[in-house]
Amino acid sequence: MTTSLQPAPGGSHGFATDQFAPVRELFDSMLDADPRYSAQLAVYVAGRKVIDLVGGPDVAPDSLTGVFSCSKGVSALAFSLLVQDGVIDLDATVATYWPEFDQHGKGAVTVRQLLSHQAGLVGVQGGFAMEDYNDLPAVADRLASMAPMWRPGNGTFGYHALTMGVFLEELCRRATGLRLQDVYDSRIRVPYAADMFLGLPESEESRFRSVLFDETPAPAFFDPHSIAGVAGNVQAGNLLGLPNIRSVRAAGSCSGAGVGSADGLARVYAGATTGIDGLPPYLSPETIALMSQEQVWGLDRVFCEMSSFAVTFMKANPRMDFGSAEAFGHDGANAALGFADPLYGVGFGYVPAWNEEGGTASRSMQLSAAVRKVLLNS
Amino acid sequence: MTTSLQPAPGGSHGFATDQFAPVRELFDSMLDADPRYSAQLAVYVAGRKVIDLVGGPDVAPDSLTGVFSCSKGVSALAFSLLVQDGVIDLDATVATYWPEFDQHGKGAVTVRQLLSHQAGLVGVQGGFAMEDYNDLPAVADRLASMAPMWRPGNGTFGYHALTMGVFLEELCRRATGLRLQDVYDSRIRVPYAADMFLGLPESEESRFRSVLFDETPAPAFFDPHSIAGVAGNVQAGNLLGLPNIRSVRAAGSCSGAGVGSADGLARVYAGATTGIDGLPPYLSPETIALMSQEQVWGLDRVFCEMSSFAVTFMKANPRMDFGSAEAFGHDGANAALGFADPLYGVGFGYVPAWNEEGGTASRSMQLSAAVRKVLLNS
Amino acid sequence: MTTSLQPAPGGSHGFATDQFAPVRELFDSMLDADPRYSAQLAVYVAGRKVIDLVGGPDVAPDSLTGVFSCSKGVSALAFSLLVQDGVIDLDATVATYWPEFDQHGKGAVTVRQLLSHQAGLVGVQGGFAMEDYNDLPAVADRLASMAPMWRPGNGTFGYHALTMGVFLEELCRRATGLRLQDVYDSRIRVPYAADMFLGLPESEESRFRSVLFDETPAPAFFDPHSIAGVAGNVQAGNLLGLPNIRSVRAAGSCSGAGVGSADGLARVYAGATTGIDGLPPYLSPETIALMSQEQVWGLDRVFCEMSSFAVTFMKANPRMDFGSAEAFGHDGANAALGFADPLYGVGFGYVPAWNEEGGTASRSMQLSAAVRKVLLNS
Repeated sequence: MTTSLQPAPGGSHGFATDQFAPVRELFDSMLDADPRYSAQLAVYVAGRKVIDLVGGPDVAPDSLTGVFSCSKGVSALAFSLLVQDGVIDLDATVATYWPEFDQHGKGAVTVRQLLSHQAGLVGVQGGFAMEDYNDLPAVADRLASMAPMWRPGNGTFGYHALTMGVFLEELCRRATGLRLQDVYDSRIRVPYAADMFLGLPESEESRFRSVLFDETPAPAFFDPHSIAGVAGNVQAGNLLGLPNIRSVRAAGSCSGAGVGSADGLARVYAGATTGIDGLPPYLSPETIALMSQEQVWGLDRVFCEMSSFAVTFMKANPRMDFGSAEAFGHDGANAALGFADPLYGVGFGYVPAWNEEGGTASRSMQLSAAVRKVLLNS
Repeated sequence: MTTSLQPAPGGSHGFATDQFAPVRELFDSMLDADPRYSAQLAVYVAGRKVIDLVGGPDVAPDSLTGVFSCSKGVSALAFSLLVQDGVIDLDATVATYWPEFDQHGKGAVTVRQLLSHQAGLVGVQGGFAMEDYNDLPAVADRLASMAPMWRPGNGTFGYHALTMGVFLEELCRRATGLRLQDVYDSRIRVPYAADMFLGLPESEESRFRSVLFDETPAPAFFDPHSIAGVAGNVQAGNLLGLPNIRSVRAAGSCSGAGVGSADGLARVYAGATTGIDGLPPYLSPETIALMSQEQVWGLDRVFCEMSSFAVTFMKANPRMDFGSAEAFGHDGANAALGFADPLYGVGFGYVPAWNEEGGTASRSMQLSAAVRKVLLNS
Repeated sequence: MTTSLQPAPGGSHGFATDQFAPVRELFDSMLDADPRYSAQLAVYVAGRKVIDLVGGPDVAPDSLTGVFSCSKGVSALAFSLLVQDGVIDLDATVATYWPEFDQHGKGAVTVRQLLSHQAGLVGVQGGFAMEDYNDLPAVADRLASMAPMWRPGNGTFGYHALTMGVFLEELCRRATGLRLQDVYDSRIRVPYAADMFLGLPESEESRFRSVLFDETPAPAFFDPHSIAGVAGNVQAGNLLGLPNIRSVRAAGSCSGAGVGSADGLARVYAGATTGIDGLPPYLSPETIALMSQEQVWGLDRVFCEMSSFAVTFMKANPRMDFGSAEAFGHDGANAALGFADPLYGVGFGYVPAWNEEGGTASRSMQLSAAVRKVLLNS
């Protein structure tokens, strides 16, 4: 993947087709407004790259950084292949593939429920320690033996920030004997030449840039043994520095330790839905419909905000207004964002260098809206 | 229906019985506070008219104007007759009456679910065009062939602003061969002499006054292909002018193209529940209980606010505090309001000339509260 | 139960172990900040009292006052004994024990649903009159014959402020022939020497202090026949004075007429979960798990705020952040609070003399957080 550098009238480098000049103007205005702001933005439409921009002091066209929970979306794309292959049935019980999971009344929990944040297994007793990020099968064992923190199937859901990837990985391992990261590499990353890694190889280390963030003052007391405290692994402190640790990003937890570029994120989603540059899409329309169908919507009991999920993927909603009703993707703790919007034929990637606020009116939402405005007016 | 004009100490014309003088005082204070404010207010108690007031420069005692989604409530009153007749069973599947509806997994959707905003068919692909408002059977065909925008039966609901009337009309046509508007005319409007039209005849045109509203600046981007965008037909722009188009109000869509007066709204609800002027109520207590029972309550996924619905009818709740737990009715986009409150024996109609804000603390809610305070203290 | 009075450097009397000095400092700072503030605070850890403090002009170490809905939690502890004894099955229908309950479609309502605020029987027609508080079996009859205010089992719930205790009492009476208050006295209050009364005997009257509160200006109109109006018995006016009426506190309604001290509240919860002073816990871990498991979570339709309940007990949540995911208890209208947190081994009681605001950031939540911070850092 190459990026053609051009003169930078408004601060950004790279290119946007004439049609998408309004998006570049918006990105440039963001760069103008904040000298520290640094980010990559990449957009594909109908399988063709239409935007590949980079700007600001702390990012390069080919730099890679942590994308946090965008990793969940990337992993769910790989997991979709298992569903497409018939290896995993969303309506089967988890215990079908993972017998040890059937403890404390969890025998009836389905893959669909588990992967849409309904199972009440938001964290592990005592919290995740650093070494846990490098031995997720052991974490899976602990989760299998836990009682859920609410009754699965009671209609509520809450974001499984740290455990969702463990479930994706364990189900893949149980059903195929393979690591989900290896499925991803062999069937998506390599063939679609995507600069998006679930486990950053040593060979790419020179391109890695640490996630940048300001130290925040200690927040008010938050009980580490409350549901939200367990989900957020509160006792371990700020999670933003995790991908900056070599062993963590080398292990590449599907929950949040992925490393990539905006183009990498855009390519995996465009590859899934439209194909890219002559390569056909790796997911069928049926698989996309199955995996991107909204499963839950409402007040997320961990976020305590409105939220909606498909099978692992986030769905767009008024609080996360990244696309149409067909859009599916995932953001990260630093407001990185990757998604596909089949209705528009869009694959979208956004990666900031500094941690920023996501959600309503965030830069990524504004940039996504600008892309859609162009397409609606075309 | 006649309105006795009296001297207007506080600005209003018409009458209120002595008992309801506090309501007239409140209405007069609203007229005093805003020289442009113009509205009609009518209230029946136990089948007798106790308030019939009009005030402000832009309304006459016998003028008619658009009441938007109040039309849904009026249509649901007519639909209640079909339920009462045994022609429609709320727990039957929609496909029982409308076989083409059984597409994309919608075969199990019940009439009850469809008519309480649970079916995820909030709009049509590509949006409603102007001609669609005059050919709703064709819209019904398109809706029958659509996939729902969320999984029906997953416990969530969202306001079907433009399609609810299509469903009421199509179910009536399928089950009886009649237009719901004709059922309404023959069994409610004419016998109960209600100045409330689902399809304004040419003969009443001279009484029609356009809905008045200020042009608002363009809102922030709102994806027309998001669930809320589809529900709001965002791409078509502001809906407030629709009833001002002769062909639209002549067709009289049950979703929102009804035209009436406050007295007309109050009469249809009083006629349903208490009877009026010696005419018996046209709905039985059993039918009222069935149709006014709350079906859904919670965060409406289109409004993104707390909301609650019976079968089509709105139920009172803290955000729409128009009555007791037994009240049922519907407001309109311009804050027009019609409802019955069987507990108080009230039929209520309110129609403003200028578009105003509805919901909590709106004028209609204040006026409704004033009526109930009088009754509670009597 | 004795309280050792010590010099009061910061305003409080009583004791806190050295380990819990930070909690005493916080309590003292609250006393310093408000000369009228008066309260008791008691905490047990692993069955040993570690804090017993009192401060302010309007409370004495051995004074008792109304604790409002903390009574529900205390009653639920007694009810837990019936579940533990196998006398009540949470998944049986209410009608199993109380055949008259099977009216208006309530035959399928389970004990679990009824006792977790899901049954839609939030009040009685016409409201509770003063004499009703002294004849709750008659109220139970009226509730049995009522239609629910929403469809039980539709996934929604709303706080049954005044009727929850009626259900607990009636189920006990039906299943055992005993008054729940007598079960409580014989198996909890007396053996565990808890200064917490469901029905204050004449002999303890001299220790009673009236609940203190400022008269508030009349609130905005609130329909007494709306769901929230019925639940709050709005027509009867302010409920804060009820325990100040001798007959009400003598009858000791399980919904809200309990009278106690902070130490009494802490002792009943510590007695349930850890035992106290060598006495074993009166509930088994299995019973605690069953009774403290979250049943509902979400927007409470009476409060119109986020809320969560186990079987009668409140669960901690971000709006009521009193403990870990294992905590269970109940607060009262005056912000009194009693709970157990098995994860921390804590029994906690807090009773203010003046009515204060509960919920997020209230004094009781701050004091509970301070206790947990000490334990987390130990």
